[in-house]
Amino acid sequence: MKKIINDANQVVQDMVDGLVAANPTTLKQVPETFVVVRKDAPVKGKVAIVSGGGSGHEPAHAGYIGKGMLDAAVCGEVFTSPTPDQVLEAIKAVDGGAGVLLVIKNYTGDVLNFEMAAELAEMEGIQVEKVIVNDDVAVEDSSFTTGRRGIAGTIFVHKLAGAKAASGASLEEVKSVAEKVVANVRSMGMALTPCTVPAAGTPSFQLAEDEMEIGMGIHGEPGINCGLIASADEIATTLTEKILEDYDFSGEVAVLVNGLGATPEMELYIVNKKVHALLADKGIRIYKTFVGEYMTSLEMAGCSVSLLKLDEELKELLDAESLAPAFRI
Amino acid sequence: MKKIINDANQVVQDMVDGLVAANPTTLKQVPETFVVVRKDAPVKGKVAIVSGGGSGHEPAHAGYIGKGMLDAAVCGEVFTSPTPDQVLEAIKAVDGGAGVLLVIKNYTGDVLNFEMAAELAEMEGIQVEKVIVNDDVAVEDSSFTTGRRGIAGTIFVHKLAGAKAASGASLEEVKSVAEKVVANVRSMGMALTPCTVPAAGTPSFQLAEDEMEIGMGIHGEPGINCGLIASADEIATTLTEKILEDYDFSGEVAVLVNGLGATPEMELYIVNKKVHALLADKGIRIYKTFVGEYMTSLEMAGCSVSLLKLDEELKELLDAESLAPAFRI
Repeated sequence: MKKIINDANQVVQDMVDGLVAANPTTLKQVPETFVVVRKDAPVKGKVAIVSGGGSGHEPAHAGYIGKGMLDAAVCGEVFTSPTPDQVLEAIKAVDGGAGVLLVIKNYTGDVLNFEMAAELAEMEGIQVEKVIVNDDVAVEDSSFTTGRRGIAGTIFVHKLAGAKAASGASLEEVKSVAEKVVANVRSMGMALTPCTVPAAGTPSFQLAEDEMEIGMGIHGEPGINCGLIASADEIATTLTEKILEDYDFSGEVAVLVNGLGATPEMELYIVNKKVHALLADKGIRIYKTFVGEYMTSLEMAGCSVSLLKLDEELKELLDAESLAPAFRI
Repeated sequence: MKKIINDANQVVQDMVDGLVAANPTTLKQVPETFVVVRKDAPVKGKVAIVSGGGSGHEPAHAGYIGKGMLDAAVCGEVFTSPTPDQVLEAIKAVDGGAGVLLVIKNYTGDVLNFEMAAELAEMEGIQVEKVIVNDDVAVEDSSFTTGRRGIAGTIFVHKLAGAKAASGASLEEVKSVAEKVVANVRSMGMALTPCTVPAAGTPSFQLAEDEMEIGMGIHGEPGINCGLIASADEIATTLTEKILEDYDFSGEVAVLVNGLGATPEMELYIVNKKVHALLADKGIRIYKTFVGEYMTSLEMAGCSVSLLKLDEELKELLDAESLAPAFRI
């Protein structure tokens, strides 16, 4: 295992310390937790948005904390759901009296623990709603999940629900936007290499020097096809076509070409070129494109493609100001 | 070689196409070149800033094109200097009548080719100045360079000279700021793994499973020490102390903890934690911190640390608006 760490059992603590040290004017840590919140939290009268999950997906989710996006991120151990009490601390730290929306990626542990936290918060008089993101079209029911997994499309939920909350909308309205994004976003990924959870010390799976896996999850869950490495154009085509088969994207979309951790930006742009060509062929208009590392899987090499179908409301929310360091608009 | 590409000899073309496709409202390509410029170039009456070099360091340099930063980036073949005629095309495309500053990383090929382009441009009546960035304290004279190499500290030259140019300053004033940044910035890096140039197909060097190299260049040039992998704290200490030995950073600084391509953001934050502790011990105040991938080396795992000594003028320029996608302020 080649990693720049001190202690494999201390990586989340060290990361949170380094993250808050880097952003002293915009972030703060809830003492004795791995919960990171906006420095000005709670924002009185604004609906707050909380996300999180296992660590190892940086910049998800703490990089999305900021005006116009998230109020808090709960950082679990690597690829491990945060406990309900940590999520509860996040909810309590950011509730400004207008309620809290939890944005949960669909993994069984996350769903259970965030739901339990919501119940605990409600017992303390805080209004909590939740949305579950399940954008990954690759597989139904995988290692850690019932139904479809939540992957990079989650970033659009953060962004658009965050913009709605910043506009002064009610909890019900913010939740409704989040649900609309979930309904309109689809993603799929592929991997060239596995990654290693620090505390485990060895890769979670193996791929031969000439192999790739299509439909891989962001924790190394099996995909739909393990085969020889294809060209960038073939990979882009496989991912995009599977997404387009799943939902009617006719009209206008946002595109996210996401790197999983070790993929050079050069390769992501090469994939993007083909995604644009494929969508142009289908007459689908691209409103905005995002290329980079938004939802990673430690040092996994690979990428995912996400499409979000847009209408006028969603375009306006996508364009609204965001001061989150990992998603500045 | 595991890469998401179509043709190893076509990666720069495909990348530039995908990059411009992703940013249609802010970027344009100079036809029949690998030169990318601001969509609104030339900006009349503004000093223009041109950088570039071999590709493979993304987001350097095209990600730094935007209001408040670069006007053009010249994308050479991977790890290969762009030719003088390409640099000349960039200069011609962005000159708004106030002259052009070339920001050159100190590699012999880049220096020669950018200087030749400057001469050609001057023959066409365009006023051109240049600065050479040589922030890497690791070694004097390495594989491709006489003197010290230019690495991640270059980003600060782009940012601060870009801000000065955006303020309406003269070419002489912009050059003077760039020179001040060069004089005040120092960097050093380390690698856990090599990277593979697509057209070469095999890694440029080898490191054993338990080895790292300190002082490695961003093209895999040898460093000062190849040894067993140390802890994050030891790595941060080695890099930071060598930088501090080289220049008097007492006062206030900006910190850049840069990932080389395959290093999880988690590890960069762990390094940042220690860098902050080391600077606090020395009584050096941190004005701003940047953590992420700013100057990469394809899929190399590793990081670099850069420090920039600040005064009131440099702080103001660092804080000025930048709309470059890879350095939004």
